Amino acid sequence: MNSGMTLGRVREAQQRIEGLINRTPLMRSRSLSSLTSGEIFFKCENLQRAGVFKARGAFNAVYSLSDSELARGVVTSSSGNQAAALALAAKSRGIAAYIAMPRVALKSKVNAVQRYGGNIVWVESKGAVPTSEEYEATAADIQGRTGASPVHPYNDLRTIAGQGTCALEIIDEQPDLDIVLAPVGGGGLLAGVSVVARALSPRTRVIGCEPEMADDAYRSFQAGAIVPQLNPRTIADGLRTSLGDLTFALIASNVDEIVTVSEAAILSAMRLVWEVLKVIIEPSSAVPVAAVLEKKVSVAGKSVAIILSGGNVDLDNLPWGTAALPSPAR
Amino acid sequence: MNSGMTLGRVREAQQRIEGLINRTPLMRSRSLSSLTSGEIFFKCENLQRAGVFKARGAFNAVYSLSDSELARGVVTSSSGNQAAALALAAKSRGIAAYIAMPRVALKSKVNAVQRYGGNIVWVESKGAVPTSEEYEATAADIQGRTGASPVHPYNDLRTIAGQGTCALEIIDEQPDLDIVLAPVGGGGLLAGVSVVARALSPRTRVIGCEPEMADDAYRSFQAGAIVPQLNPRTIADGLRTSLGDLTFALIASNVDEIVTVSEAAILSAMRLVWEVLKVIIEPSSAVPVAAVLEKKVSVAGKSVAIILSGGNVDLDNLPWGTAALPSPAR
Repeated sequence: MNSGMTLGRVREAQQRIEGLINRTPLMRSRSLSSLTSGEIFFKCENLQRAGVFKARGAFNAVYSLSDSELARGVVTSSSGNQAAALALAAKSRGIAAYIAMPRVALKSKVNAVQRYGGNIVWVESKGAVPTSEEYEATAADIQGRTGASPVHPYNDLRTIAGQGTCALEIIDEQPDLDIVLAPVGGGGLLAGVSVVARALSPRTRVIGCEPEMADDAYRSFQAGAIVPQLNPRTIADGLRTSLGDLTFALIASNVDEIVTVSEAAILSAMRLVWEVLKVIIEPSSAVPVAAVLEKKVSVAGKSVAIILSGGNVDLDNLPWGTAALPSPAR
Repeated sequence: MNSGMTLGRVREAQQRIEGLINRTPLMRSRSLSSLTSGEIFFKCENLQRAGVFKARGAFNAVYSLSDSELARGVVTSSSGNQAAALALAAKSRGIAAYIAMPRVALKSKVNAVQRYGGNIVWVESKGAVPTSEEYEATAADIQGRTGASPVHPYNDLRTIAGQGTCALEIIDEQPDLDIVLAPVGGGGLLAGVSVVARALSPRTRVIGCEPEMADDAYRSFQAGAIVPQLNPRTIADGLRTSLGDLTFALIASNVDEIVTVSEAAILSAMRLVWEVLKVIIEPSSAVPVAAVLEKKVSVAGKSVAIILSGGNVDLDNLPWGTAALPSPAR
């Protein structure tokens, strides 16, 4: 399948969003390097605008719109990070953003969308959490009423190209990496990163990391066809979605391996990053860290970049202390 | 008073500790810049080794020792950050570190010292918290038994010169700052930074920031003589100490102003940094942020560097959520 996704598109995205997004630091950790006998770098997308890598794709999409599209705004459906990132990008360009959100979205994520001036439309749902169909029905309804342009959180070439700019920055600073690790949910980040790595640094292994409790990318990668995620029960709220056809095709042809990690490993990796690196990461970001700590990926003697994808957490409900393990999402 | 503290000493320290400590990022915050109408940079010493700027002074002191001194190790007294920083520096050079610590020290700080192989000696105390005299008696006893070299947490030229290297890095990246803000406890960081700023960027205002509940530096600065801190009741545990004679002399002659902030302002500034910047800071680091947010320092239209001094907190006892305001330290 020719997805139309190329390094050239990522480079165009980089020029388009330069100065609009943060060039985030790539930090070497002495502690984690010593602990793992590898040379471990962290790409801190938790320090990205809106606290998440998704600002890259959202800004690229919004700044790709034609004048007539701009006048009618953008629409997306998301329970969290895409919602905030697209609202911020739209605010930056002075256009409307309509966000289809579930009523169960975290208060901190709802607050972020409102702070960025996004127009929230609640997704009505028969279950506790809306299905993809319910999300899409709400987004389609908004689109019908407003004419807003849809910006898909991952299954969209503008989004994927934007996320890929993260890899351009990594390779610019560390051109000789043995391994790049990224979390995989809908697959936008992993797809974009894999396209860039294949083109610029063919010897670098690109590995996707996923919770065992939401392992659709792993199963899809093994099966060679999309296996949708049913009933994801992971604390990594950013990774509960399934791959799309575009992201699946790119991942299938450019990614070397997908590994999965346990919920307990995700939590202890998250805690370790907070304690040792002193940066705030959300559970999704801890997934590739867990893959290294659990030795699902062997890093001894290797130069490794781990993408810390985001840092949006609810500080009043941290998953440790008296609460210990949180109850899984329904 | 000629303290013997010069820019040259700081430059020597920088060469001595290069590659041993982290060159920490100076990050511009769009959100805080927008909120304050200033251009706000954060020097992230919370991302320093041992999670605190004190690694600079500790490494400089340890790597300044003669061969005969090295054989007998180093000793310091500290309830927290200095303890961990000196233990780490000593471990790095393969020598012994003896740390006089109070039994009330946070478990996370005790753990850090033990992880770095420091030898903890508990300070016996008649009160809830040891007095300076009780700390010094314990340190003197260790010194008598072992011959270890004392490394004072702030009132030591090697320590002050090490802390000053932080300002060399800031000015190297942003040479035209209007204001530099640093917290002040014992005054080692503020003294070192002020010496560098006076020498390299005379127009930059250097402002020390202190909790109202531990305002000895403010009162000393106003009085022109050391006014010791009695009964400090602040959440900013790194700032409860009083100035020493060396740090006082340097601060009196090189610092432009000292401002104080409330406990409530410290807590909300700390929370804001966690939420918006996504980095973990301890309460002491929040003090200069609070000074800006409370408008104790006017930053509109100005270019400002705020030193985030450290990130060592007890993640199981965060000062918000159900607990709200913590009870002040006795």
